[in-house]
Amino acid sequence: MASSAATAPWKQLLLNALESNSHLKHSSFLQLATVGSNGRPSNRTVVFRGFQESSDKIQIHTDRRSRKVEDLRQCPLAEICWYFADSWEQFRINGRVEMIDEANQDSLKLELREKAWHSCSTRSRLQYLGPSPGLPCLSEESTAEASLDPSIGPVASFCLLILDPEQVDYLNLKTNQRLAFMSKKSADEVKGWALEKINP
Amino acid sequence: MASSAATAPWKQLLLNALESNSHLKHSSFLQLATVGSNGRPSNRTVVFRGFQESSDKIQIHTDRRSRKVEDLRQCPLAEICWYFADSWEQFRINGRVEMIDEANQDSLKLELREKAWHSCSTRSRLQYLGPSPGLPCLSEESTAEASLDPSIGPVASFCLLILDPEQVDYLNLKTNQRLAFMSKKSADEVKGWALEKINP
Repeated sequence: MASSAATAPWKQLLLNALESNSHLKHSSFLQLATVGSNGRPSNRTVVFRGFQESSDKIQIHTDRRSRKVEDLRQCPLAEICWYFADSWEQFRINGRVEMIDEANQDSLKLELREKAWHSCSTRSRLQYLGPSPGLPCLSEESTAEASLDPSIGPVASFCLLILDPEQVDYLNLKTNQRLAFMSKKSADEVKGWALEKINP
Repeated sequence: MASSAATAPWKQLLLNALESNSHLKHSSFLQLATVGSNGRPSNRTVVFRGFQESSDKIQIHTDRRSRKVEDLRQCPLAEICWYFADSWEQFRINGRVEMIDEANQDSLKLELREKAWHSCSTRSRLQYLGPSPGLPCLSEESTAEASLDPSIGPVASFCLLILDPEQVDYLNLKTNQRLAFMSKKSADEVKGWALEKINP
């Protein structure tokens, strides 16, 4: 029942789901679970920002000051749960998250972060200039509209997350089919995938 | 900025969200994050089965053979992330989960489980008679329609989960308002709630 391929076999299923649910504004919203430093699970909605070029790695933008960044520093593992309301499909994607902020030493990664920043709307960018997310709201805090030169690069609080999938659990509630995809590295470190039909 | 009340102040917000999103078939679907025995986060879509009578405790049905039950046996903590697509509201509900299966010694709890079972549709009930969720699908396995006497009580694999909320993080993306609710027990063990406006 096992098979493997150089291109992640679940990626096409996910691209199809994105396509068939694209009329839903929230089809790019997914839930990202992490483990907090206190050992408690943590879960929030984030936006899918596409795959990293020619790969199966998933990009997410976040504020460096958010709790998920704190969580991921302690434990870089995460599980995405992504439910497509129109096609009744669920993807659970478990993997390791790399965080790319301005302190990153790798120029290629900083380039990815720069590219991610410029792909954001002005409105999204302005959020990174706001007060620290999750901290008490101080009414005295200036609510004046900040402005941002569209040509400048990412601000300090902008962080790119890249999730490298290791396991994917696909469930189709219309056909009642469930598939488990497991990544495995070959001797020459090339990622392949095995797939198995499992009970829903 | 703090206030407290005997009735959970976030519960009305949640009931309002359920009401204003009730035309969406999936408005009762939420994502439940747990921590696996391997320390990895785990995340899946489940169905909200109402509050436990006169309380703020959230009911969920599950198969005792599912991985979430295994997770919760090791670590009873969970976080719900519940996004309402039409009203753009998110509830993150963190708490402790109690599992009620047939081995439970408390007759009041077994009664709750019985009641939960009878609230299910026949189609939902039949799922609990299927093969173990998550295990490899054996094509030889009989796919004959099982039948179930509607008057009999819960089958062995039926498990009622009850999440007792300790922290609730509410975010409204239309008003850009975010509220943190923290439960606290008084000297006489009565649960109260403190609320704080926090940065989105």
